[in-house]
Amino acid sequence: MSEHEIDSRGVRGFRFAGVSAGLKKKGGLDLGLVVADDDVPAAAVLTRNLVRAAPVELTERRIERGRARAVLVNSGNANACTGKPGLAAAKATTEAVAEAIGASKKEVLPASTGVIGHLLPAERVIAAVPALVSDLAEDGVARFARAIMTTDRWPKVARVALDLGGETVTVLGIAKGAGMIHPDMATTLAFVVTDAAVTSAFLRKALRRATSSTFNAVSVDGETSTNDTIVAMASGRAKKPIRAGEKDGKRFVSALTDVLGALARTIVKDGEGAEHVVTLEVRGAPSDAAAERVAERVARSLLVKTAIHGCDPNWGRILSAAGVAGVSFDPTEVAIEIGDVVVAKDGMGVDGVERRAADVMKRAEYTIRVTLGRGRGESHITFCDIGHEYVRINADYRT
Amino acid sequence: MSEHEIDSRGVRGFRFAGVSAGLKKKGGLDLGLVVADDDVPAAAVLTRNLVRAAPVELTERRIERGRARAVLVNSGNANACTGKPGLAAAKATTEAVAEAIGASKKEVLPASTGVIGHLLPAERVIAAVPALVSDLAEDGVARFARAIMTTDRWPKVARVALDLGGETVTVLGIAKGAGMIHPDMATTLAFVVTDAAVTSAFLRKALRRATSSTFNAVSVDGETSTNDTIVAMASGRAKKPIRAGEKDGKRFVSALTDVLGALARTIVKDGEGAEHVVTLEVRGAPSDAAAERVAERVARSLLVKTAIHGCDPNWGRILSAAGVAGVSFDPTEVAIEIGDVVVAKDGMGVDGVERRAADVMKRAEYTIRVTLGRGRGESHITFCDIGHEYVRINADYRT
Repeated sequence: MSEHEIDSRGVRGFRFAGVSAGLKKKGGLDLGLVVADDDVPAAAVLTRNLVRAAPVELTERRIERGRARAVLVNSGNANACTGKPGLAAAKATTEAVAEAIGASKKEVLPASTGVIGHLLPAERVIAAVPALVSDLAEDGVARFARAIMTTDRWPKVARVALDLGGETVTVLGIAKGAGMIHPDMATTLAFVVTDAAVTSAFLRKALRRATSSTFNAVSVDGETSTNDTIVAMASGRAKKPIRAGEKDGKRFVSALTDVLGALARTIVKDGEGAEHVVTLEVRGAPSDAAAERVAERVARSLLVKTAIHGCDPNWGRILSAAGVAGVSFDPTEVAIEIGDVVVAKDGMGVDGVERRAADVMKRAEYTIRVTLGRGRGESHITFCDIGHEYVRINADYRT
Repeated sequence: MSEHEIDSRGVRGFRFAGVSAGLKKKGGLDLGLVVADDDVPAAAVLTRNLVRAAPVELTERRIERGRARAVLVNSGNANACTGKPGLAAAKATTEAVAEAIGASKKEVLPASTGVIGHLLPAERVIAAVPALVSDLAEDGVARFARAIMTTDRWPKVARVALDLGGETVTVLGIAKGAGMIHPDMATTLAFVVTDAAVTSAFLRKALRRATSSTFNAVSVDGETSTNDTIVAMASGRAKKPIRAGEKDGKRFVSALTDVLGALARTIVKDGEGAEHVVTLEVRGAPSDAAAERVAERVARSLLVKTAIHGCDPNWGRILSAAGVAGVSFDPTEVAIEIGDVVVAKDGMGVDGVERRAADVMKRAEYTIRVTLGRGRGESHITFCDIGHEYVRINADYRT
């Protein structure tokens, strides 16, 4: 996967489009559409925020069937906290698309990203639908990827090809990132299309499993958006059906995980000005859930993020953040490694390693490993520092 | 209370000192001592972090008696994550003080703040004890207040006088602040001395109650230090005993709350470059505990802190942060007020109020009120924005 050049190739059974509907203040592509040739197996993972945007509400209802024909995505307006008028706007716009592509309205899923608290101008979206549908093309991935961006510095596309009994099956993912503390923008959207022949039930399970170790294991600014949405659709153009429990099923889940993992990492990298992408591994916890709590608490610590930004091997901050995660461990048993450098052992610092640890921290990507004790619980999270771009944005704010 | 000029007057029954022991790299006062004339009723509130510094461990053991004679405080070194040698250093230094003032070692409580993970150089502290004890004076409050500072911009002292049956009783508090994301420094220390005649049990209860609505209701950067310590001591020089349940008891708790409240507010104000101190009131929650969870989640949201810094009445971020607090509420019932401006009602924005709300947000101090629904639970928290000083520190970091 390249981050900056977009491979526009699609996947059998899908067409993609991206046009401008005048939703973004600065102009540019802001309305995207993915259409399958038929009503195909589909699954979604939606935000766990109690406050959910209108498109999330509607997508949740419509995905219950386990099938979908299209996804309509707009940037420039989140259509969140907009009440019944917001829901009406999400319905009206998806209905316009359904009509234009000859689908039932329940077959079109909406997703939005942008400013919270402003009603989506449905009339602008509806007016752009004819152009949007004309723009549909099998190799329209690049335009779709650009149309869903907000403050992303680059479009995010990842592709994995699987050889299944001599046939190439593709898993293609397209995402937009969560900016670091950017005004009105912390939404993650990701769309996965594949020509694999899978059932709705299997696709749903596979998506949940792949999400838990990828999108649910990254942290940019610790926020969960009102609009976070991941949708997967499978056209079933491949001849050989994939079933859960079989070897091919595992390979498909693995490919889906690779695609979502690649997208999640590039989202963290694009976390407005992040200079360091850190994978934090927590081991030796009483349980996986406990390890996850510690990982999340450390990853959202401002003191830890600042230390990472300053390439400062300040392991005391990591230990201190772990100590407030609500997990029971013995601080005097904790070991902390930065890259391959053991900086703390038995809860105390190791002498003479600061410079080597600081050198590791100058890298763009590295791993920090926290071993809490002798438990078997483990978890990992990928997160970033508070970067220069963040500083710049904040400084500009007032001038 | 003035923030920048220090009133050096003490309280009957106590002497104060501050000297330099060479613990701070940049020099200056870094060793403070408060000594009571006798072994008097005392109470402490200590960090809830699982990872606790050696002085916290020792103070917890020694305060069990409910009495203390002295508190030895150093800045420049937290003596945290220093294992058994750290505990030995805390013991040795407090024993040196005990010997010098003619007390038993268990009567001296230690407290430390500064860099984590470096052993307290006990020999330097012990070498400074004679000078420290010579420096003790009834009006030594200013020197003590300066000795416990780390990156604080000003010393923090608050005093409330109570008239109890014709006699003036004083509650005096001295604190140091938690800098905003400053390297190695997020510790809160506060010391309260009073000439009130109270029992240990009452002082303990009063301190816990006063802390819960003050120090436990402020948030600078969402961190809980390994060293946070509040100690209260009562010399009992006042003639009239104060008892729980009586009117004077309530007045004493109220005075203690005022002192801790004033100290907590000045700590937030001093949160490295904070420009806005915001009191967030959460009402209409299912319970007080639920309201507290929502208040804490909103106060540590980077998106909310950034909006406050930018004077941007971006209520969607507040609602979104509330939505991930793990509290059940109906988003379509939520109202949000910024100062006296209702910016959202029934979960939706109110038109035409943005400018007025932005004007409120230009103030140095204001209130945001979130009404979740029709429950009776409420809570409040005082927090600050991410200020210019923070930006500067982060920008300087790499140059």
